[in-house]
Amino acid sequence: MNLPNKVKIVEVGPRDGLQNEKENVPADVKIELVNRLTAAGFANIEAASFVSPKWVPQMATSAEVMAGIARKPGVIYSALTPNMQGFEAALAAGAHEVVIFGAASEAFSQRNINCSIAESITRFEPVAKAAKEHGLRLRASVSTAFGCPYQGDVPLESVAYVVARMRDLGCDEIDIADTIGVATPRKTQAVMQAAIGEFRIDGLSGHFHDTYGQALANIYAALELGISIFHSSVSGLGGCPYAKGATGNVATEDVIYMMNGLGIETGVDLDAVVDAGDFISRFLGRKGASRAGNALLAKRAG
Amino acid sequence: MNLPNKVKIVEVGPRDGLQNEKENVPADVKIELVNRLTAAGFANIEAASFVSPKWVPQMATSAEVMAGIARKPGVIYSALTPNMQGFEAALAAGAHEVVIFGAASEAFSQRNINCSIAESITRFEPVAKAAKEHGLRLRASVSTAFGCPYQGDVPLESVAYVVARMRDLGCDEIDIADTIGVATPRKTQAVMQAAIGEFRIDGLSGHFHDTYGQALANIYAALELGISIFHSSVSGLGGCPYAKGATGNVATEDVIYMMNGLGIETGVDLDAVVDAGDFISRFLGRKGASRAGNALLAKRAG
Repeated sequence: MNLPNKVKIVEVGPRDGLQNEKENVPADVKIELVNRLTAAGFANIEAASFVSPKWVPQMATSAEVMAGIARKPGVIYSALTPNMQGFEAALAAGAHEVVIFGAASEAFSQRNINCSIAESITRFEPVAKAAKEHGLRLRASVSTAFGCPYQGDVPLESVAYVVARMRDLGCDEIDIADTIGVATPRKTQAVMQAAIGEFRIDGLSGHFHDTYGQALANIYAALELGISIFHSSVSGLGGCPYAKGATGNVATEDVIYMMNGLGIETGVDLDAVVDAGDFISRFLGRKGASRAGNALLAKRAG
Repeated sequence: MNLPNKVKIVEVGPRDGLQNEKENVPADVKIELVNRLTAAGFANIEAASFVSPKWVPQMATSAEVMAGIARKPGVIYSALTPNMQGFEAALAAGAHEVVIFGAASEAFSQRNINCSIAESITRFEPVAKAAKEHGLRLRASVSTAFGCPYQGDVPLESVAYVVARMRDLGCDEIDIADTIGVATPRKTQAVMQAAIGEFRIDGLSGHFHDTYGQALANIYAALELGISIFHSSVSGLGGCPYAKGATGNVATEDVIYMMNGLGIETGVDLDAVVDAGDFISRFLGRKGASRAGNALLAKRAG
């Protein structure tokens, strides 16, 4: 079995992670977190979201964060942009990549944004066009690709459809996301194959949640197909909005530990990630959700 | 990739799990736990350990537990037997299977039992012989097969050597154990291949710890080789004796969730395991360590 020699880990903790935290995290803490993650070696950090602060108050400081971070040349700092207003703000803030999104589940789309999948993607056309005009990278996130909290199963054809639409919008990268963490390895491979049928494999990424403890097994199964981009959240920041007290985004430390063990290059220093996870967990006043992180901290403490 | 259609999950929570818990668990609680696990459908439960109570006070009630449980015909109730005294006690208690053990790491053997690997196995000869004479199943656990807290790397040849010695003692089943949870999927396959070289594959089991979050990925990698017996601990009971506050045995709920998703038959009812995990976690006064368990409990709570 040939696994990729090298993968890109997209660190989503500062945005996707913190967005789901109840505790308000001030801009200077977020800046420190992003700076630590930059120093740890990530090539891509999801740092901000230019959504209405009415809907996501945790992200109200996004412009401040983007202005305050110490950028390292070559590192891509991404921002979520739900509409043209968000795009203009991301552009002004110097985001290198804007992220648009759509659900693979029709029920999820209807319940979350009150419109069909097709319509939700059409709404992103101006953002996609503007990103191209301004030379920004364009990424799309396809949520509920492995299962939906409302409709349960999500047909593979729906995943393929959304991936094809996002491709046609000119996306450089497309995330296949297990929003509720229900995937297992065979399902992972089936859904990823559906996406591979519509988009070049080196532009596809796996965004797995560890809600049922399956994320690393799924990442391994995706690696076996040749997927080479994965999302993770330092210290497992974020939790699961669909099951209180359950785990959300897979923890970056666990992913890096596995990649190191597999001899797959990430460019990321695990100890520095453990430090960053410890920093933000202390701020949030709780034990981190990364197993590798907790084990390595325990080992350090002797 | 052909995975097995069916696997045996050996539930080790009542022994390997509780043995590492600080809180004293009275016999009636253990009996209730074993009865719940029996009802959940496990074909094999590690229920007792006939070691000196001086060394492992948590196991002092083993005879009482074995006498008190409601046995289901066909279910194997196993007991750890470090020596002939332990064997006699296990026999008297009606254990169906006795478990002997050895380390694959020379340093671990020396530090833990003050003798070489070879010597430690020789000491089990009378127990192995007695088990055969009395028609009891004989199982061997090979610890530190993937790494050692003292010597670090463990040569594949050491694993093969211990497996061969245990085979020659007449073992029916041999566990390959990642005592400190350091394995990743490729390493898992390499170590398992070394064991497969010395013993029939349908008698080999994978005993993985989730200390670094890798257990399910490793189990999946072992399934790909055709390994069809796995150990797990309800609610992740046990913790890691080598890193305080870190995770130990992989949680049964997470394993069953994956097997269900893979369409692999276990004979175990996941909801009943979640209930058993909730029962013992409440007794211990803490949140369980199973991600699937916590997510399913959160879903039930709505």
